[in-house]
Parts: sequence; C-alpha cells; structure tokens
Amino acid sequence: MALDHRKSIFNFVGTRPDRPDGLDKVTGRARFGADAYAPGMLHGAILRSPHAHARIVRIDTSKAEALKDVKAIVTRADFAVLPFKPGLEGEFWNVLENVMAGEKALYDGHAIAAVAATSALAARDALKLIEVEYEVLPHVTDVDNAMAADAPVIREGAADYSVPEGMHPNVVRYHESGHGDVEAGFAEADLVIEDSFVTEATHQGYIEPHACLASLGMDGKGELWCTTQGHWYAQKYCATLLGIETAQLRVTASEIGGGFGGKTTVFIEPVALALSRKANRPVKLVMNRSEVFRSTGPTSSASMDIKIGMKKDGTITAAQGIFRLQGGAFPGAPGDLTAMCAFAPYDLTNVRQVGYDVIANRPKQAAYRAPGAPMGAFAVESVLDELCNQLGLDPVDVRLKNAAAEGSKASYGPTYERIGLVETLEAAKAHPHYSAPLKPGQGRGISCGFWFNHGGETSVSLALSEDGSAQVMVGTPDIGGSRASMALMAAEVLGIPYENIRVTVADTASLGYNDVSHGSRVTYASGLATIKAANHAVEKLCERAAAKWGIPVDAVKWEDGCAVPSGPNAGDFDPLPLADITADMGATGGPISGHFEATPEGAGVSFGTHIVDAEVDSETGKTSIVRYTVIQDAGKAIHPTYVEGQYQGGAAQGIGWALNEEYIYGEDGRLQNSIFLDYRIPVASDLPMIDTVIVEVPNPGHPFGVRGVGETGIVPPLAAIANAVSNAAGVRMKQLPMSPPRILAALKEK
Amino acid sequence: MALDHRKSIFNFVGTRPDRPDGLDKVTGRARFGADAYAPGMLHGAILRSPHAHARIVRIDTSKAEALKDVKAIVTRADFAVLPFKPGLEGEFWNVLENVMAGEKALYDGHAIAAVAATSALAARDALKLIEVEYEVLPHVTDVDNAMAADAPVIREGAADYSVPEGMHPNVVRYHESGHGDVEAGFAEADLVIEDSFVTEATHQGYIEPHACLASLGMDGKGELWCTTQGHWYAQKYCATLLGIETAQLRVTASEIGGGFGGKTTVFIEPVALALSRKANRPVKLVMNRSEVFRSTGPTSSASMDIKIGMKKDGTITAAQGIFRLQGGAFPGAPGDLTAMCAFAPYDLTNVRQVGYDVIANRPKQAAYRAPGAPMGAFAVESVLDELCNQLGLDPVDVRLKNAAAEGSKASYGPTYERIGLVETLEAAKAHPHYSAPLKPGQGRGISCGFWFNHGGETSVSLALSEDGSAQVMVGTPDIGGSRASMALMAAEVLGIPYENIRVTVADTASLGYNDVSHGSRVTYASGLATIKAANHAVEKLCERAAAKWGIPVDAVKWEDGCAVPSGPNAGDFDPLPLADITADMGATGGPISGHFEATPEGAGVSFGTHIVDAEVDSETGKTSIVRYTVIQDAGKAIHPTYVEGQYQGGAAQGIGWALNEEYIYGEDGRLQNSIFLDYRIPVASDLPMIDTVIVEVPNPGHPFGVRGVGETGIVPPLAAIANAVSNAAGVRMKQLPMSPPRILAALKEK
Repeated sequence: MALDHRKSIFNFVGTRPDRPDGLDKVTGRARFGADAYAPGMLHGAILRSPHAHARIVRIDTSKAEALKDVKAIVTRADFAVLPFKPGLEGEFWNVLENVMAGEKALYDGHAIAAVAATSALAARDALKLIEVEYEVLPHVTDVDNAMAADAPVIREGAADYSVPEGMHPNVVRYHESGHGDVEAGFAEADLVIEDSFVTEATHQGYIEPHACLASLGMDGKGELWCTTQGHWYAQKYCATLLGIETAQLRVTASEIGGGFGGKTTVFIEPVALALSRKANRPVKLVMNRSEVFRSTGPTSSASMDIKIGMKKDGTITAAQGIFRLQGGAFPGAPGDLTAMCAFAPYDLTNVRQVGYDVIANRPKQAAYRAPGAPMGAFAVESVLDELCNQLGLDPVDVRLKNAAAEGSKASYGPTYERIGLVETLEAAKAHPHYSAPLKPGQGRGISCGFWFNHGGETSVSLALSEDGSAQVMVGTPDIGGSRASMALMAAEVLGIPYENIRVTVADTASLGYNDVSHGSRVTYASGLATIKAANHAVEKLCERAAAKWGIPVDAVKWEDGCAVPSGPNAGDFDPLPLADITADMGATGGPISGHFEATPEGAGVSFGTHIVDAEVDSETGKTSIVRYTVIQDAGKAIHPTYVEGQYQGGAAQGIGWALNEEYIYGEDGRLQNSIFLDYRIPVASDLPMIDTVIVEVPNPGHPFGVRGVGETGIVPPLAAIANAVSNAAGVRMKQLPMSPPRILAALKEK
Repeated sequence: MALDHRKSIFNFVGTRPDRPDGLDKVTGRARFGADAYAPGMLHGAILRSPHAHARIVRIDTSKAEALKDVKAIVTRADFAVLPFKPGLEGEFWNVLENVMAGEKALYDGHAIAAVAATSALAARDALKLIEVEYEVLPHVTDVDNAMAADAPVIREGAADYSVPEGMHPNVVRYHESGHGDVEAGFAEADLVIEDSFVTEATHQGYIEPHACLASLGMDGKGELWCTTQGHWYAQKYCATLLGIETAQLRVTASEIGGGFGGKTTVFIEPVALALSRKANRPVKLVMNRSEVFRSTGPTSSASMDIKIGMKKDGTITAAQGIFRLQGGAFPGAPGDLTAMCAFAPYDLTNVRQVGYDVIANRPKQAAYRAPGAPMGAFAVESVLDELCNQLGLDPVDVRLKNAAAEGSKASYGPTYERIGLVETLEAAKAHPHYSAPLKPGQGRGISCGFWFNHGGETSVSLALSEDGSAQVMVGTPDIGGSRASMALMAAEVLGIPYENIRVTVADTASLGYNDVSHGSRVTYASGLATIKAANHAVEKLCERAAAKWGIPVDAVKWEDGCAVPSGPNAGDFDPLPLADITADMGATGGPISGHFEATPEGAGVSFGTHIVDAEVDSETGKTSIVRYTVIQDAGKAIHPTYVEGQYQGGAAQGIGWALNEEYIYGEDGRLQNSIFLDYRIPVASDLPMIDTVIVEVPNPGHPFGVRGVGETGIVPPLAAIANAVSNAAGVRMKQLPMSPPRILAALKEK
C-alpha cells in the first residue's frame, strides 16, 4: 500500500523490476568477500587478546616463525607510526590502535599479532606458538561504572575540549543542546514523568563475516578486495595505516552480505595488507563469527534519564534527556546523535538534551542503522507512552498534537523544511492495524522515529555504448538494491529501458572519491549524481543532434529517449533516438559520457511511525510479535520493493534488539556469547509478516524527491515494542532486551 | 642519444622513472590472461578443422555430452544469428564466422565446436568424441594462386563495390591512388627498374597465448576477463555475437604478454561466454601455441610488382606499385594500407599505387605493427637500393633528395604538416654507424619507413585523493609502458610527483568508450586525453583556491603543483599546494575529478630510417645482423626508455620477419610449423644490441608534441636488412624470409 502525495510523473521510477544482481545472488555467481582468489595466495589469522585490559609486555613470535608453512608474522611494529592522538580528531590513530594493539590490549578480542601461512589451518596453528606476556589491568565494561570516580582509566588524553571539567577521563565527548526553559516548562505541566532506561550493545548481525584479499608490494602499490560499505574509506585508512600513497592502493568492494553500518570501517584489511607486504604474496583473511562478535563494532550500550512534562490535553510542556553511551575503548559513541534525535519528532517549546561519549573495555562501537537514535527513541517514547496511559490520551493523537512540521524549530537546532511526520501519523491512525481489536494478553505500542539522512561526497559517471545501452558507475556499494534504483533513475532521464542499463560499483581506481554507503545516503546522493550525470550525457546527445540537424542546441529537447527539434524548429526533423546518436558517436565528436561530482547538501530528514502488537506469555516471559506495521516517509520510493525491504529489515532488526539481542560480559570482562547459538537474532519463525506503508512527501533537495530510507526504520521499533510489551504485561519495561528472564522478573516485581 | 629539436620545457616528461608495473611483473604478481580464477570455474577446449576448406555436413556431440565431466558443448547454433554479410562491412558476421565455423571450415584450425568440462584435460579428451562429417573442398593458400581464374571460390559475395569487374571473387577489395602521370615520368628517367617481390605471412609471436575467463548468465549479464589490446572492442563484439546488450557485458583487460596488433580482435572470448551461458558456470579458455599459430591472425602474405624511374642525380621521376595481399578467409588484408604507405616517404611528381585484398584458405590476418607497411617498404626500398647501386649514388643522399617534408603532397593524397623524415635521414648520415667500415662478407642497407599513426575514440578520467595523490583511469591496455607515460604527463600538468600518481586501465564498466590500443595511438590519444583531464581537474583546483581566497578564478594560475594568485592579486596569498586543496575538498564542493572524451584528429604521421650491417655466410646461407641503428621521429619522447624499447622491438621483430619467420603450408593446406621449434623467431643470440636515436619533431596536434612510436619501427627493417643482405651477398634478394636455403639458392643462381 502506497500513499502517493503527488501525481506520478515518472515512466520508470516507482516501478518494481527485477534487481540486476538477482540471478547472480540466487545462483551463487555473485562474489562476496571470501570469494576472491589470487595465485600464490596465503591465508591469514589473527591472535586476539584474552584480556579486557592488559599491558602487552612482550610478544615472542620466534616459534611460530620457525614453522615452514608460516610466511609472515606482523605486530604493531609492521604498521606506520602515526602521531599519538587518542581523541576523536585522531581517528587514524584510533583505527590503527584498534586494528592492531599497541602498548595495551583494550578489550577481549583486541588484535595482538597476525600470521600468514600456506593454509588457514596452518595460520591458526601458528597463532598458538606466539607467546604474549600480559600485565593484566583493571577493566570496566558498563557505561555507568565507566563514568564512576573509581573506574580504571582506559586511555588518558582521549577526552576532547567538549567535556566539562571534573568528569572522569573515560568521558571523552559531551554534547548539550536544546532551547527554551525546561524548568519553566515542567512547572506548566499537569503531569511530569521522570524515569531511567538502559539498553545493551547489540551487533548488526550481518550474515557475511569480514573478509578480504590483499596484495601489497614493497613498491608501495597494492590491491585490496574486501566486503565493505565504503572502499574509498578503506583505501584512505589502509593507505595511511600502511604508510603509502592513497592513490597507490586500489580497493574493490565485493558483493556485501549485509553491513548495516558495521562495515563502514576497517578491521582485518590493514592486517592483510601488512602481511602481504611482509610475505610478498597475496593474503586472504576471513573472520569467523566469534571474531566478528568480539572484535568488530557492535552498537553502543546506553544508560538514559528522561523527564517529560505534559498537559492534560496532551501538549508537551518540556522535555529533557540525559544520554550516556558506551562505545568501546575508543571515542565515537554517538551520545550527541542520540541526544539530537531523541526529541526531534516534536515541536517543543522547552527542550534540553545532553549526550555523553564514554569509553570502556569493549570493542569500538560501529554504526548500526541510525546510530544512537533507537536507544533515545526507546527512552523518550516509553515516557510518552506512559504519559498517554496515565492521562488517558490516544498515543497517536498526542504525537499529532506535538508533531514537528515544516517551519518547526527542531530540538537539535535547525528549522525543518517540508517533512512528513504528520503524514505518517495520519496514515497510522487511518491504518486498519491501529483500530484492530487485541486479544487477551496482547498489547499495542506505537512510536515515532527520526533520522537526519546524509549527503556526503559523491561521484558518478555514466557512459553510453554504441548500441545505445548505458553504463552507470557509482562508488557506493549496493547494500540494499541501489543498483536497481540507480538504473531506474538513469532510465528515467535517458528514456531508455531499465534492462539496457548496467550499474557498476566502480573500484577506487576507476572513479572519483565517494563517501561510504551510510547515512541513508545512497539513493539520495548517488541517485542525485546519477540523475545529474545522465543529464550531462543528455546535453551532449542534444549537441550531437543539433550539429547533425544544423540547428542551435537550445532548439533541441530530450523526450522519451529521443532528441526532438523544438521551438522554431519543431517538426523540422524526425525524433532522433539515443541509439542512433551513439551508433556513430566516435565520428561525431567522440565517446559520450556524463559526470557529476559534488557533496550534495539537500538530504531530507525523515520520520516514521510504527505500530506493534505484542503478546506476552506470562508463564515463560516469551514475547511474540503478532502484528507489525511500518509507516515511513520515503520522499519518493524509486523502487518500492526495496523501500519496503528496508522498512521490514529495520523492523526485524529492531525486534531482535528489543527482545533478545545483547552483549553479555562476564566479570572477567570477556564476551560470553560470541556465536549465533548464544547471541539470538530473530529467525523467520520469530517474525510476523511486516506490513509497510510508503508515505511520499518529496524532499525538495532531490530532483525526484528522494529522502533515503535505510535507517529511520530501526528508530521506532525498540520503543514501539517496549510500549506494546509494557501494555501487554501491565508493567513498564525500562531495560532492553526484554528477554524472557527480564520479563518474568518484571512480572514478579509487579 | 637523443636529438632535441626544441628546448626542454618539461619537469617530468622526458625523464626515465621506473615503470609502475615493474615490480608486479618481475615478482609474478601481475595477472595475465590465464591468471584468473573463479569459484566453480570450468575449463574449455576447442575442436578445430583439420581441413583447409570443407563443408561441415554433420556434427554429433552426443558421445562427448555423455561424459560426466562435460558440462556444456557449443557449436555455431549457440551464438546469435547475424545477417549474412561476408564483405568487409559485415565485420560482425565475419568475426562470428571466424570465431565458430558455420556451414564451412575455411582454414586448417578453424573452430568447429567447443567443450567446457571440469578440467582442461577432460575438455580436451571430450573433443575426441565429437564426430564431424566433412565434405572436403578444393583449397588455395597462395595469394597469386588465389587470384587465378581457376582458383576455388572461398566465399561468394565477399567482394565489395571497389573491385573492378571481371576479377576473381577471391579479390574482395581494390585500392588505387596516386597523382601525376607515371608513364610520362618513366619516360623522363635515366634508369627504370621493374621487379617483383614476395613476402610470407608471419605471426606477431606474442609470448602470452590468448586466454580468458568468462561468466555469462541466462539473464544476459556477464563478465569477461581477457588478454586483449581493446576490451571495449571485445565487449562490443562479444555482446553482438552472443546477442546481449553491450553494456551488460563487463570486460576487464588483464595484463598483456604482448599483442603487437594480434590481440585487437576476439577469438576464444565469445566461445568461453557461450560455454559459460550454457553451463551456467564460469569458463576459462586458454589457447596452446599451436592454436595461436593456426587460428589467430598472422600478417598477410604479399606479392608485389614495383617500377621506379630515376634520373642520374637521384631524382625519382615516377613510381608505381602493385600490392597483392592475402589475408586469410575473410576480407581485411591491408592491400590499401600497403599501397598508401609504400611511397609515402617521398615527394613524388608521378606516383601510382594499387592494392588488392585477397582471401584464401588461411586464418584471418590480424594487424601486426603498421599492418601492410613493412611489405611495401621491402619492395619499394629494395628497388630504390638497386637504383642507387646501379647509378652509383649514396642511398641516404638519394632519399634526402626525394624526401617528403612539410607541404609535400603525400603519395596517398593529403599534404603533410610538419614531419621529421629529413631529420631522421640527416641523423642517419651523421651517425657513426653510417660511415663505419665494413668487413669482408658484410653489407650495409638502409631504408626509410612511414606510418600514419591514429587517434581513435578516447576517454580518460582523473580523480584526486584527499592526500593529494591522483588516480588516472585510461581505457587503453598498457602494451608498451603507457602507464608510465600517462603518469608523467599527468605529473607534468598537476605538478605532483610521478610516484603519487596511479594509472589504471579501467574496465569497460568503469569508463567511457575507448578504441583499441593500436595505431600507435595510446601515448598520443590517451596521453592527450590525460593532459586534458588533468587540465580539467586543475581548473577545479583553481576554482577552490579562488573561492577560498575570495578572488576571481581568472586571477588564479597553476604553477608547480600550487594555486597561485596572479594579476592584480599576485602576492596576496601564499601558493596553495594541491594536497591542501584536496584535503578538505569534500567540504568545499565535493570530490575533484577531471574528464575528457573525444576522438582526437591530430595524430602525427611518423618516419624512421634504419641502418643495418649484415654478414652472410656463403657456405651455410646464414645471415648475422652485426649492427643495427634505428632512427625515428617520436615527436616527443614522454618516457625515452620505452620509446627506445619500441624502436628496438620493431627492429627485432623485423629481423625475424626478414630472415626466418614464415607460415609454411603443405599441399594439403595445413600449416606445417605451428610451434616455436619450427617457426623460428629471433632469440637473444640472434640479435645485436640495437642502437636507437630519438628524433623529436613535435606533432602540432598534441599538447606535448607526441606522434606515437609503436609501429613505424617495423616498417624499415625488412627492406634495410634485404638491402644489407643483397649488398653482402652480391645478389638482390626478392623473397622473404631470407632463410639460409633461399640465400644459398640465390648465391647458386648468381
């Protein structure tokens, strides 16, 4: 079901053709990270710290080096020496420190050394012969404990200028924003609720582990194949960590088996390159699942205090949130983003939000769809739900009453342009789901969610073939069907069939710089660039037609894939199809291509509203999601099937996060559940069919109105499910995941 | 030794840095055609005709198909049905017919069927189980025999409009050009010599056999990795032969182990794709050496009649040539080019040239460095040498007297712009080699040579990295060090070090259309495009500097890698280095790239003069080349080492062609010497150090003066060596190769 907010003016955009990579993926022809091979290739393995916090006193690799199958062993000494900059501005240094430990192991799973050998088995065997002497240090893994005065200091000097004096050195960044006078606002309220909420770290759970094939020569020239959301990022970071020129490292992005933000940085790639340089052979490195859990980026864990005041009519008078995010042993936990997003759906007179970035002895957090936003929404929307319950108000009506709209001052500062929150709330209210009866033991929850969306550096080129087919080169790995969307947009501009267009994710040596596939930016930014590059090619096509006809180029327009004479020359010549122009382009001026490079600034913020029905088994504490509806503003759905897929994926992952997923650390600071048997992501039988409603309130910053849809869909689920579970169980759930033991405990407490 | 014709104005161009692919090639890391691998890959093998000319009555593949290791067998029925167009305008049809025989096998080695199996051995074994019933037809392999009235007709309908009425159908094209009145010219001469010459087909002799890895799905989308001089050509032809959209086939050019013109078309690539589509698996196909000889393109063989009149003072009064070229079973033998080049070095009042393109039962000829020109030069320059001998004139003086220069009307039509023939002749005369004494039994020969050089469709993009390094994307496979040359030209424009530039041969899905690496066009055309793309990037760099400084962009100039304020703003700001602009390019407008697409029309014709000393052993007939000097106009030598390499390579290959190499056909029409033991190319011990002189008469059609150097160097050797051998032996050698038996026979006849 799609709610169209403007008449369709498109021939291709909005249709649902097969994805171009579909056959490859179902027949096994698609090549993922681990599917690369090079003659003479070695296999790598990484030795990881068994301690949460320890000084590395000595590493002795001599016994491992003596094995005949071992061709190289690297430690931190085999990487570039970067200036010590442990704060967020020292991102190169931090990434290097995470890729291979320096003086200290900072978390269970931190890389200490790596081996390249003639087989994966030989490499893993060799790890056992590397002797590491550790001096174990006190550790801390919980965010509140890490901020306590007696907490061990993870890294001196990591805090930046933003942190107020007197805070523990583990607080490395501080954010505060808002407007109005929250104390005055609370005083105006008929009801003020203040409460605290906790969420645990969860992993993105991509099915494909990190994998790469690296080849680097002593001449500083290399190639890297890897599964990544951003190969230019990988290029830049790997080159810096290896001490070579960026341009001399060619990085190709493989097909990607899921990323969700977790593949926006590098882990094993610089290690494989260092091994390759030392062994002078290509080196393949593939993580196992346990390494993925222990050593790549989960989300932050969070501890949050929310205070909201409301009048009896549902008007929010004031809102305040304190958001403490633990992001592992390095700066970067998105306390600022959590704070900025938490109240963003509402037009508030008085609002204040504080965010903390806290380090602890855990793996460095990585982005996971709308990083930071789901936790804040969980806390804020839980309090809103409780306010509605206690004041006897309809939760959709209350949100509509306070909803931000065009012209509202956002809680985090700017004034909104045209946005679609109200439309998603109206669609929720009108949706049959919202008025469907509930069975005994069931509860319904709703939540709104917000995400900024992003532009980012973008380069796209488009080249025409002599037969009139077109090749589009983008630099953003296809993590959600974007090749189909780009082909649709190019088809729309060029006026040639979708099937005649091939979209390729170009490697770093074949296209200008591109930001990572993140921030819901791909369909927006690479889409915009594809449209502009296609327009650039159309200009040239019109020039060729004008030259052929001997008329001015401004007397040629492009219609339905043809150059057409217009103005005073209208009707003078038959329309000239694209393929007739390209057939002899070599003789009429040369190859026809179009290009576009920019950092587009018009990304449109997006909102969603989710409705969930949950049923809680009071005997076992097990929650079943019995119905789920996602309503979200796409701006414009280029390929509606993949928009729906993003909505469903966000909801599915949110269900896991809300109900079962969590990083469980022992008192020894070691991760206790680093395999999928112990870390429980939803499987098909855990999920209902997730219904979707695509709302389309066009983004004025994109030629076709696209906002981007990848992230907003994971913002409401934690809250909507918590509200549904709380309403079903009759007790407010304030800690995620709402696993059976926690629900049973809450029921017992009630 | 380099003769510089203008003062050096370059910082990078003209230097001799290491080639960027050097380490890869000496350590084995470079990946050539056979170095590709894909999971699930099958191996292909091709069944080839044992007959020179036969109707294919029946092919029974059932026994081969029954083998469990055999996954697909293809015949002509598995390719697209293209309209029957056997003339040169039907190039797609001809290539298909050559790739896989239709109704008739047209030469010994013509592909009949192909197998894909789980191993190369299994595939070759399966070939033996394919039963083919042939109706053997009369054949002809010699060019003069093929034109005779009683010759068997190879293909009805192959002749085009140019062929005069009454000629045998095996004459498929006819060229005639010239100016003046040759009969009047001959009447003015003091001496007229008329003679006939014969050359045999030779093979390019590239060390790397044809090899590819193909993957094509039932969805019409595919990938091809192959060793080729032109992957866009491969893309277009393979797509057409398979009946898919051009853009849906992504072709990547591997490193290439020699091509010399022989890898400008497709042979096994469409077969591998057809096998892959049928088996639904990737298929690797690698030729063995015998297949390379029997089934890929050697040069044409030639039969030529030359008549030249000269005055006693050396003035040529008239020149006439008839050039009959046999190019295998398909149109394309360059009789026209042979004719056009033969007299091109001379400024002639009366000249007439006729060229024939003749088909015979041999593999289709392919280009081989200046296709057609060496044979014509051999014939013409032999007659010139004989005229000098008989008139007692110095051969360099005679050539200088008649040399074409700027403003001369070329024998093939146009008027020359600035050219460098006179400079090469003057350099020859001044060179110590020309005046060095000869020992008994030795002879000296000289020859001039001409080649057009070529522009062709060209696309280049250039992208800057944040650290200020640059990536250049070209579409012309690097067959002679062109990545080094492109990097030098980009460094020259950008003002950054050579080492900071990576030049990549982009695949067809990553760049606009590019013509093949042929016609000596790469350094000229891709070089010009690299310079223009770099200038495009420099414009953007200046724009960013202007915006930063708040001054007009036309007040910013680019000097030594920096934006510098100029004009009224000169000195207002410190020079801004490239890397300082790229460091924050994402925030100042986006990624910075430069692009250029065109079909450049300013390729500069080039000339060379070779001096050879040969020693003939009158007992064995063996010829030793004792000294060899190549003098050639490069226009501008971007990387002099690789220019010298091209000169030396042309001479070395010319020595083989002149002395030993030939296709030997039996009376049964089968090739008798299809391995390197029987087909003798020169080895190191056959060659002297080949001395080189780079003359630089800038080409006004290229920003840095480049003419292109890859082909002209093979034009003079056949003639220069024949003249040296004839002068040493005291008998005019009129047939190539001048192998020991032929020399002994000539000596005996004398």
